[in-house]
Amino acid sequence: MKPIYMDNAATTPLREEALEAMVNAYREHYGNSSSVHRIGQAAREALERAREEFAACVGAKPEEVVFTGGGTESDNLAIRGAAMAARERGDHIVTCAAEHHAVLHCCRALEGEGFRVTYLPVDAEGIVDLERYRDALEERTVLVSIMLANNETGALQPIEEMSRIARERGILFHCDAVQAAGKMRLDVRELGADLLAFSGHKFYGPKGVGALYIRKGVEIVPIMQGGHHENGMRPGTVNVPAIVGMARALRLATEEVEETAARLGALREELASGIMERIDGVRRNGSAERSLPNVLNLSFEGAEGEALLLALDVAGVAVSTGSACTSGSLEPSHVLMAMGIPPRIAQCSLRFSLGRYNRAEEIDYVLDVLPGIVERIREVSSVGARPVAGSRVSKDGAR
Amino acid sequence: MKPIYMDNAATTPLREEALEAMVNAYREHYGNSSSVHRIGQAAREALERAREEFAACVGAKPEEVVFTGGGTESDNLAIRGAAMAARERGDHIVTCAAEHHAVLHCCRALEGEGFRVTYLPVDAEGIVDLERYRDALEERTVLVSIMLANNETGALQPIEEMSRIARERGILFHCDAVQAAGKMRLDVRELGADLLAFSGHKFYGPKGVGALYIRKGVEIVPIMQGGHHENGMRPGTVNVPAIVGMARALRLATEEVEETAARLGALREELASGIMERIDGVRRNGSAERSLPNVLNLSFEGAEGEALLLALDVAGVAVSTGSACTSGSLEPSHVLMAMGIPPRIAQCSLRFSLGRYNRAEEIDYVLDVLPGIVERIREVSSVGARPVAGSRVSKDGAR
Repeated sequence: MKPIYMDNAATTPLREEALEAMVNAYREHYGNSSSVHRIGQAAREALERAREEFAACVGAKPEEVVFTGGGTESDNLAIRGAAMAARERGDHIVTCAAEHHAVLHCCRALEGEGFRVTYLPVDAEGIVDLERYRDALEERTVLVSIMLANNETGALQPIEEMSRIARERGILFHCDAVQAAGKMRLDVRELGADLLAFSGHKFYGPKGVGALYIRKGVEIVPIMQGGHHENGMRPGTVNVPAIVGMARALRLATEEVEETAARLGALREELASGIMERIDGVRRNGSAERSLPNVLNLSFEGAEGEALLLALDVAGVAVSTGSACTSGSLEPSHVLMAMGIPPRIAQCSLRFSLGRYNRAEEIDYVLDVLPGIVERIREVSSVGARPVAGSRVSKDGAR
Repeated sequence: MKPIYMDNAATTPLREEALEAMVNAYREHYGNSSSVHRIGQAAREALERAREEFAACVGAKPEEVVFTGGGTESDNLAIRGAAMAARERGDHIVTCAAEHHAVLHCCRALEGEGFRVTYLPVDAEGIVDLERYRDALEERTVLVSIMLANNETGALQPIEEMSRIARERGILFHCDAVQAAGKMRLDVRELGADLLAFSGHKFYGPKGVGALYIRKGVEIVPIMQGGHHENGMRPGTVNVPAIVGMARALRLATEEVEETAARLGALREELASGIMERIDGVRRNGSAERSLPNVLNLSFEGAEGEALLLALDVAGVAVSTGSACTSGSLEPSHVLMAMGIPPRIAQCSLRFSLGRYNRAEEIDYVLDVLPGIVERIREVSSVGARPVAGSRVSKDGAR
């Protein structure tokens, strides 16, 4: 049986149209886009067409898009780049406790370099409270970094309001849009952020490539040094084929976004209600309304997430626990903890993240096998045995 | 006519075997290599096989290879990572004036953060003098960064001796091997460096991916923050398909290295001697012996390099000037200047860099068209007109 892939928040398969565009670029536009000759200039033209294609999908001007090596690099460039550029004006950063580690760990590092960071709490649905946010902003605040959609729960933050409040006070606003891009309509002007991070492999584009939107006039400093590529913002030979593939993937995802969101939202609710009907002691983490349509985070009381994941994997279904980043240490998810979920419940969580290749039959299959799996794991746990140890767990930061 | 590509030092076309391996990985190993489920673990296994393949090509242990987003990132990670890790022990770095901008600009940035940097001169052939090198090492020196092969001239530095001298004094040694890898046999133990930077697209692998060899036991700190990927050294979802392609390309290049080096070395000498015979006032920058076999850097007195490049391009031949990095500003190459070449000669330089797809007929064609081109440009220049202006020039850092 072909495995059922419900871990699209971790990564998505490269779509064939994007692969085709990349293969063509690898063969036809192999030149260095910085080279003066025609072979280089052909690569440059392919790059700039891709930049226009990408920018149009998010409502940006082409010159506001800088291509990077991925979402983590984009977040680092935005946060460190903005913090360092504003060093003279202030030393305070506001972010949220439920952000991705690319944001949180970057902020932690800046704390070691003289910056102060406020980590805002979130409510039970994973949303930042606007009053607390407003109160956190200080005279010396230079940057806010809040994600658009959470990678573990799909929770959507009120970016428009938050960016407006920051703008009124002359504070730069960065938004990690890595998980949201391609899953919902997204317009940088409407969002009002100064910086937005994107990652190609979250919307059926290639890995190893991302983008940072930098609103015209916003000053950040590069985090690596070398050639003058990407308008001096990101040195290194430009990865034209991957950028071409990413832009193609984003355009197609954008064209289909309402249709796909509606279809996956319906499948997700079928999965959620089907599980709730069949299994007792299930808690939904995050709301159905204020979240991405494709992410479902559930806690199965008394059944450890890691054990559920492995049993589902054996049954041919790929999901993740609420917290792939810390699964090696068996620490409960920092996102669920920030939502006030007790550790013993947080550790019993699974994230189902649907994608464009999922079909209704796959939902039916999961609803068939999951009740038995949960029952078995609960039985093992209840007699005191620790369900499964971590030989196959990962210490890495899969989103 | 198919253009003749003689700019393989800037970038190389992706070889079909590597592309095939990548396409397969994109389709089969689309999982996130940090995911716990089988789809993720299949990607992880492909990644670790590629790491073994890559490591074997350079005589490293697999666990000593960290994959990055390219050569510039590898150089930055090595230099900034080592400098920051050694901050308590010292504040002095030794490099060379003819290094790539990924090294030089990274060192410049560290100068702004309290480090002192010595930029060693080179001799007329572009080689660092060992006595001056020895004299430059201080009590507070924590890092040396010297490239294996120069990207503009192909000049080979005496890395084995230099790394030995550094090791005797307990100083870390980084070597930018970006231009050398795949062009010459390379063994990290023989070279004796602690850190070596690689870039996939210089040896017919993909762009946007590179590697850093970190000798076991050497401590550096990461330059970006996020997940715990690549043993904590490089956060961000691992670009497995590109890594698979890079490893395949390096293995094939390594298997063919002597044969290709001999063939391209012969073609290069044919080109060099053919040009010298046909055209007066040509100066060879760098030696034939102490250089990569595929790079030929020539100055054509009285004919500006940029004008020659554009005229050759029109004739269907892609080369670069001695200094692609600064061609936008029409500054003479910092590499040639470091070799003591006067600016007016340095500005008359062309770099021919051959690759595995070049054929003898292409050398013949260049020898046919170049004399007329040089004559024409010299005529234009001699009557005082500035040969061609820079609408198509690049400010970027193409190697």
